Amino acid sequence: MNKEDIKGFFATSDQLNMDHYLTLDYYLECVGDIDTALAHFCSEQSTAQWNRVNYDEDFRPKYAAKVISLTVEGELDALSYPVKHSETGPIHACRVRIAHPYGNFGPKLPNLLSAVCGEGVFFTPGVPVVKLLDIGFPDSYLQSFDGPKFGVCGIRDLLQAYNRPIFFGVVKPNIGLSPAHFAEIAYQSWLGGLDIAKDDEMLADVEWSTLIERSRALGEARVRAEQETGEPKVYLANITDEVDRLIEQHDIAVKNGANALLINALPVGLSAVRMLARHSEVPLIGHFPFIAAFSRMEKYGIHSRVMSKLQRLAGLDSIIMPGFGSRMMTPEEEVKENIAECLQEFGHIRPSLPVPGGSDSALTLETVYRKVGSVDFGFVPGRGIFGHPMGPKAGARSIRQAWEAIEQGIPLEAYAIGRPELQVMVDGANGKK
Amino acid sequence: MNKEDIKGFFATSDQLNMDHYLTLDYYLECVGDIDTALAHFCSEQSTAQWNRVNYDEDFRPKYAAKVISLTVEGELDALSYPVKHSETGPIHACRVRIAHPYGNFGPKLPNLLSAVCGEGVFFTPGVPVVKLLDIGFPDSYLQSFDGPKFGVCGIRDLLQAYNRPIFFGVVKPNIGLSPAHFAEIAYQSWLGGLDIAKDDEMLADVEWSTLIERSRALGEARVRAEQETGEPKVYLANITDEVDRLIEQHDIAVKNGANALLINALPVGLSAVRMLARHSEVPLIGHFPFIAAFSRMEKYGIHSRVMSKLQRLAGLDSIIMPGFGSRMMTPEEEVKENIAECLQEFGHIRPSLPVPGGSDSALTLETVYRKVGSVDFGFVPGRGIFGHPMGPKAGARSIRQAWEAIEQGIPLEAYAIGRPELQVMVDGANGKK
Repeated sequence: MNKEDIKGFFATSDQLNMDHYLTLDYYLECVGDIDTALAHFCSEQSTAQWNRVNYDEDFRPKYAAKVISLTVEGELDALSYPVKHSETGPIHACRVRIAHPYGNFGPKLPNLLSAVCGEGVFFTPGVPVVKLLDIGFPDSYLQSFDGPKFGVCGIRDLLQAYNRPIFFGVVKPNIGLSPAHFAEIAYQSWLGGLDIAKDDEMLADVEWSTLIERSRALGEARVRAEQETGEPKVYLANITDEVDRLIEQHDIAVKNGANALLINALPVGLSAVRMLARHSEVPLIGHFPFIAAFSRMEKYGIHSRVMSKLQRLAGLDSIIMPGFGSRMMTPEEEVKENIAECLQEFGHIRPSLPVPGGSDSALTLETVYRKVGSVDFGFVPGRGIFGHPMGPKAGARSIRQAWEAIEQGIPLEAYAIGRPELQVMVDGANGKK
Repeated sequence: MNKEDIKGFFATSDQLNMDHYLTLDYYLECVGDIDTALAHFCSEQSTAQWNRVNYDEDFRPKYAAKVISLTVEGELDALSYPVKHSETGPIHACRVRIAHPYGNFGPKLPNLLSAVCGEGVFFTPGVPVVKLLDIGFPDSYLQSFDGPKFGVCGIRDLLQAYNRPIFFGVVKPNIGLSPAHFAEIAYQSWLGGLDIAKDDEMLADVEWSTLIERSRALGEARVRAEQETGEPKVYLANITDEVDRLIEQHDIAVKNGANALLINALPVGLSAVRMLARHSEVPLIGHFPFIAAFSRMEKYGIHSRVMSKLQRLAGLDSIIMPGFGSRMMTPEEEVKENIAECLQEFGHIRPSLPVPGGSDSALTLETVYRKVGSVDFGFVPGRGIFGHPMGPKAGARSIRQAWEAIEQGIPLEAYAIGRPELQVMVDGANGKK
């Protein structure tokens, strides 16, 4: 590209009608001339050839992605990760904001993904290292999306649970239980105070525990638990399956008494989530397999924040995500950003309940609550409830006791006295057991 | 986990009925005791808790993933990539093969992905760096999949093109052309000798070029080109869209004369590809957006080979992938592995035509052909045809001339004499123009 060609891929935001553009924030490592690399970066994701040969035309004003801001963070001795590439010259770490005209592809999730993290973005000459950090959407784009049908308020209303976190539990053993045994364990956990007993993300419709049988057993157990406790309860059934079975699986599970559904968002695809969310009669809750494969590297891939935003846009009423602590290998700031993506203002799109998870128990609740900074979150132990030495009812009880301690401002160890369910957890942590 | 617990996650393959297991090859960086880390790695992707509290039962023999081979490659001074993690101790680079019982999830692509590259795999304590290198499938698993309906032979029969590569071209300008102008350019390229004129992966059903109008114009132009040349031609329409529109888009495009369809596999999701492949009346060709985001790091993420294999399993008749040369930032060995994944023996699953692409032209054909090592590939220039100084018909002609030179064993420069379409490409490369 010559100097004149390059100019066609730069603009200031006041030169553009930003209502027609997404704003894309990237971290890039550029090799050689920065402006040339960035012009290629824009051309490759939009108008890679902007006129027919021998025609005096220019598709760039209407269709080109354009750099609207650039911060050169500094020169590097080498790429942050070794990547074979074609260019030579100095290497610069850059933060760039691109205005991408969404009319090139429209309000469709697969086409959006193809534009913002597709071939153009990851195969630009001179830009071997790329991380998509964020996407900004104008209201005109958001208008085409429904977002969550229930959201935080809908889930609270369903459970009649306000001014506190929502207490989930992943029924364990996660793999291998018969539906009858699974239902009995979930029942016990509901009696102990759990709001939502859930299938593991690995457990779906399998021969040894078909969705039909499991949802029937759990639906029936849920009603019994509601009668026993006088409180609404939720069975969260995992209907992750081939996309052409999702609607049928929804219908089976809901008919049998599952009153929320779990879906592994990236494995089925965000577009399938959007389809299902439109159809769903109950809250739809997403789990996070696959996302770490492209979000864990600090300077390469796609930031998990983008996936939280897109999952909310696709219509998930609640988003389970890697939570706090080194166990989940996610920087604390990133967890907080993902929680914020669920709850913050986002056009007309309803808030989604964030569920930061990972090896939680009564002992971690206060830390999670303090870090989240509000009661608008879900708390999702697995073994912390279902591996509790006194059984799942006691496991669930220990979680509610831990919350009572927080509400009353009493240290956990003090509150545990006379409460054996919590006491056994505290003792375990102190190595007494 | 104690020593006895750890044992439950190790086996030799002759202790298992391998017909019930996938084999998963991973590169792992383990922190602390290797056996402990690997036992966790297996438990987290399968039976994270293998008995109910106070029940004498063990779900591991039937449901646990198990290490069946391990090679410790050496001790590292530090992780290959900085990742926050919970364990301490020496760091070892390991190659491990896991036997994973597929009965845990069944022959469903979203559930497979959740198992082999989901939360368990990427969030195991002591294993902060993971790359999924390969998946081996027993025939009993493959039997549930149809794979490509047409495959290499079907595409060759459609085009009546044997003993040579298949010549694709990405119509450019890729974004901004009206359907009428788009059709005229494709028509010219077919006259010049192109087999398949294709939509760019970024161009789908948009207001300024609806699929209805574009497929109608291109279907009509294709028939004219076939009459003019006496050869079968293909218009490859990109129907990438929300998953609940794919079947309708297929029907529209095919009815209007598109006789192959393009789909961005990962953006719609592999499961949507499988659904579409079952329905499709014409060859289904996949493009590669998104894959680089999780496959480019040498030691982290998912190897692109896995995605080639899964795209074939899902039913793509042809797979467009990053090709040779530093422009595409993919090691040559990896490109060859992806080509092999398309063509090699794979149970009853038909071969898929590999299309290694990236900034190709008449000048790169011989190199690609030599590296592929056979005629069973597609060649897919964009600007190399549609940016040709003499126009798209000459651009396509230059590709066919380059193939004639190869067939006849004549150096390109010699063969270009008296053939202006090829000559102008050779001159351009020599800086004469």
